[in-house]
Amino acid sequence: MKKDAIKQLIDVAAARGEPDLVIKSAQIVDVFSGKILEGDVAIIDGRIAGIGSYSGKKTFDAKGAFLLPGFIDGHVHIESSYTDPPSFARLLLPCGTTTVIADPHEICNVSGLDGFDYMVESSLSLPLSIFFMLPSCVPSSPFENSGAVLLADSLAKRMDLPQVLGLGEMMDMEGTIGADPAVVDKLALAKKWRKLIDGHAPGVHGHNLNAYAAAGIHTDHECTTPSELQERIERGMYVLLREGSATRDLLNLLPGVTPANAHMCLFCTDDRQPQSILEEGHIDNHLRLAVDFGLDPIIAIRMATLHAANCYGLHDRGAIAPGRRADLVLVNNLKEFAVQNVFVAGQLYKEEQSFKPTPIPSKVATKITIGDFHRDRFKLRLTSPQVRVIEIIAGAVVTNMAKKEVLLDNKGYYRHDPSQDILKLAVVERHKGTGNVALALITGYGLKHGAVATTIAHDAHNIIVAGDNDADMAAAVESLVTLGGGIVMVRDGELLDSLALPIAGLMTNKGALYVNEKLKNMHQIALEELGIPENIDPFMTLSFMALPVIPHLKVTDMGLFDVDSFSFVSLEL
Amino acid sequence: MKKDAIKQLIDVAAARGEPDLVIKSAQIVDVFSGKILEGDVAIIDGRIAGIGSYSGKKTFDAKGAFLLPGFIDGHVHIESSYTDPPSFARLLLPCGTTTVIADPHEICNVSGLDGFDYMVESSLSLPLSIFFMLPSCVPSSPFENSGAVLLADSLAKRMDLPQVLGLGEMMDMEGTIGADPAVVDKLALAKKWRKLIDGHAPGVHGHNLNAYAAAGIHTDHECTTPSELQERIERGMYVLLREGSATRDLLNLLPGVTPANAHMCLFCTDDRQPQSILEEGHIDNHLRLAVDFGLDPIIAIRMATLHAANCYGLHDRGAIAPGRRADLVLVNNLKEFAVQNVFVAGQLYKEEQSFKPTPIPSKVATKITIGDFHRDRFKLRLTSPQVRVIEIIAGAVVTNMAKKEVLLDNKGYYRHDPSQDILKLAVVERHKGTGNVALALITGYGLKHGAVATTIAHDAHNIIVAGDNDADMAAAVESLVTLGGGIVMVRDGELLDSLALPIAGLMTNKGALYVNEKLKNMHQIALEELGIPENIDPFMTLSFMALPVIPHLKVTDMGLFDVDSFSFVSLEL
Repeated sequence: MKKDAIKQLIDVAAARGEPDLVIKSAQIVDVFSGKILEGDVAIIDGRIAGIGSYSGKKTFDAKGAFLLPGFIDGHVHIESSYTDPPSFARLLLPCGTTTVIADPHEICNVSGLDGFDYMVESSLSLPLSIFFMLPSCVPSSPFENSGAVLLADSLAKRMDLPQVLGLGEMMDMEGTIGADPAVVDKLALAKKWRKLIDGHAPGVHGHNLNAYAAAGIHTDHECTTPSELQERIERGMYVLLREGSATRDLLNLLPGVTPANAHMCLFCTDDRQPQSILEEGHIDNHLRLAVDFGLDPIIAIRMATLHAANCYGLHDRGAIAPGRRADLVLVNNLKEFAVQNVFVAGQLYKEEQSFKPTPIPSKVATKITIGDFHRDRFKLRLTSPQVRVIEIIAGAVVTNMAKKEVLLDNKGYYRHDPSQDILKLAVVERHKGTGNVALALITGYGLKHGAVATTIAHDAHNIIVAGDNDADMAAAVESLVTLGGGIVMVRDGELLDSLALPIAGLMTNKGALYVNEKLKNMHQIALEELGIPENIDPFMTLSFMALPVIPHLKVTDMGLFDVDSFSFVSLEL
Repeated sequence: MKKDAIKQLIDVAAARGEPDLVIKSAQIVDVFSGKILEGDVAIIDGRIAGIGSYSGKKTFDAKGAFLLPGFIDGHVHIESSYTDPPSFARLLLPCGTTTVIADPHEICNVSGLDGFDYMVESSLSLPLSIFFMLPSCVPSSPFENSGAVLLADSLAKRMDLPQVLGLGEMMDMEGTIGADPAVVDKLALAKKWRKLIDGHAPGVHGHNLNAYAAAGIHTDHECTTPSELQERIERGMYVLLREGSATRDLLNLLPGVTPANAHMCLFCTDDRQPQSILEEGHIDNHLRLAVDFGLDPIIAIRMATLHAANCYGLHDRGAIAPGRRADLVLVNNLKEFAVQNVFVAGQLYKEEQSFKPTPIPSKVATKITIGDFHRDRFKLRLTSPQVRVIEIIAGAVVTNMAKKEVLLDNKGYYRHDPSQDILKLAVVERHKGTGNVALALITGYGLKHGAVATTIAHDAHNIIVAGDNDADMAAAVESLVTLGGGIVMVRDGELLDSLALPIAGLMTNKGALYVNEKLKNMHQIALEELGIPENIDPFMTLSFMALPVIPHLKVTDMGLFDVDSFSFVSLEL
């Protein structure tokens, strides 16, 4: 902060200088004392100068609404919104979210540091504050081919950036708990820079949790039970209560939050799609759910603001107090949290009327490089009809391993049985042209006839495709190549609909409203034309089937993967 | 943290490696969850590896005692213990205090950066962790002569030190609220280094408090009422609840502490003498008082540990959790907090049997340079018998301005009246030989006959002397010069007793027990021979009479000073 700015801020606070803006008649939620304060809020040069009696160049009459600090999403993958950072900002700000901590590990799996740089560069002048964690696990495991490998020496090239708060979610739990040298290199890098390390520790307990925490990992957003939440807090870890689109843990975790441990709790979305955000909201939705559950509104607000700021060392925000950024939200009351107005660094946020797509730099334009691909690659020969099948759990990203008996033809090839909800699932490597095509079987997806394919397949983002027949599956992959990445639906060789994702095969620059309309339409087609039931997200569900760090059975481009034993397994039992 | 150390810590946490020490059968106070946990605490290389089931090279049986994180004193002037840092560490560790944040502004007023360097250097290898704030107000005001002036350019030379957490208590409230350029220079320096700024804001409210907080000042340890405490927390400032020797604010402030705002509260001693520490304790004493008052023990312990760590960004300590420093305290229960054992970085603390004084570097050896001094300098000519008199308030460092009528001789010189408790008080400049001698009158000190003088006179540490006659006052000053700094008592020309303070006239290297015995004896002499009543500390009281930043009436080497109007005033009304 420049000396002139310090002097100006002090002058305005002392009521000698004139504020840019004074917000009057608000009920000010003070997250420090837990009280509702009365008074004018004086703002100068983007910061709060003081609370008291002030008059300024402009006045905003809050008419008795509640003034809250801008909300903070502690952990988000922007890529999961299918939109680029400028569109993401437009999507979140009306919900009162003014700061996010983003882990761009999706695009980094595709484009490496080029992808990281793109996210940082395209975030620079946005009204949404976007901080970054450097993806720690690219690829998420050694059991897949991704578009890039980020080891400590690569990460070191970006750790000095001021908007980089540390190392992103350490999904390599085995490597961390095992003190694997490559993991230790990354931990040491973050510590050297005195930066933070985010966690990802589903199902980790006891000695293993001690080891994970001792490694310096200071958050976890993968808790699903109150006891997991509490065990992490007891080990000094912050817990991020997640309410995404596919993963909704908030209500399951809230019974574990107490007035004594809430200081270690904050909110995150992790992966949240435009539809959820547009229809339900963002962190404002967490607030509604939490207060409706019975959490004290002040504690809920602290989790949405101050605790997140404390967790990530963002001491310039997260509260309404002198010197802090004037990121502010006016809501109607502390139950509905209907967002009326949002101020970003003291400026009333107004969405621009016209939408202009931001250009896509060539370094992140979608590339699809598949080798040796043809329809016969989907032929599945089995030595036994008793097989492991990936069982989808509606509304979750974890899967079960189901044991099923399937039909085989006389040459031992798998044959689709329309009476059983079992489909073929394939991952086609798309970054290096290895020609890898891995096959699996899936149940619970519900597709009746046709194929769905996408270039979004966490975290390596190869092509994933599911279908009841090889011809449609192959047509879907070919359509995806033609489209230049995205999502496609095919039936009887016909492309039913598609969403193009020209940024790394993950995002579009056409905005969240476009994405939402398009996906709504495509969901309708998936339901009506492909028969995928309403309780299954036809695209996101597929996108998580290749993620080998989430239990229990997944498939990567290298084969069927048992997350529990952290090794490949055969389809045959 | 080196990679080998990270790996070793993880290995031990995961129960693959062997801990150096395992503490068993303790009731572990978890400041994160607010719960009492059971389990073994595994320690390796000075850090906590995990809580659970462990066996190690050594075992310590806690026998059911409560295991707490080491206590943190958020703000202390080590010089006020009269002992050097090595002796201070010996004094504090048995009380369970393992970390202090020290503001060495006393020695810096005498010796400038040489004094600062001495404090840092003599703290380097101690078992007590000593962090430093760079004194922001040397001298405390422009209304006195000190041994050094530290402007921003001087402070900049030490701001990079890892043990420097920021800028010390900003006592120049007027300069801060007024955005004085020299103050703004210092604020900007701390902000540039992303370091903290401690506050000192007695009586600051409203717009002024907004301005003070907007300046980036993030603590205050000068609150005396619950409403002051609450107002500061509402402005985002941490409040340090002080229990010193002369200033005891804790019980006055505790009614303002609530479960909702306690996260912004921590403890400090500020100025605490060996006697108080040896007889009552240190931060353990805060804990006893707070719990006895009715504060929840867990909240009290958090204030003594985690909240202080959070306030000062010391995230490597303040809690019992994997990866944190194994600074630990075993107490008998959560009411008496009788300290049974202290572990410093995993080592059981045992006081060394033999005491070896640490050598005194010549750069801080006491120097006394007084110019043009003789007994007649104490003659006080008044133009009116109606005078302003400094009124001592027993147990406080603030004074009142009393209006009194005194006796004058026929030439207009003040004459001592044995029937009135009014004495002459003088400040003799001792750093630069200016020859400044300023006179004042004092009531409430109670001395009957003789003089007391000391080189401890906050904050400029000139010589301050009080007496009923000029001859004894002059003899006291001369004794002090001969002694090489410290405290002397004189009656009828005879040196009754003295404490030598060969480090900057403020500290000795002879240890706290020596100081305590010596001072006890001197207090007895003050009571019996000089008639100073028991409720008045004969030396500390005097030491605060020259501090022009504490209300209301004080005297510096430049004259009688009205703190309220922040200007010199005449003795005559």
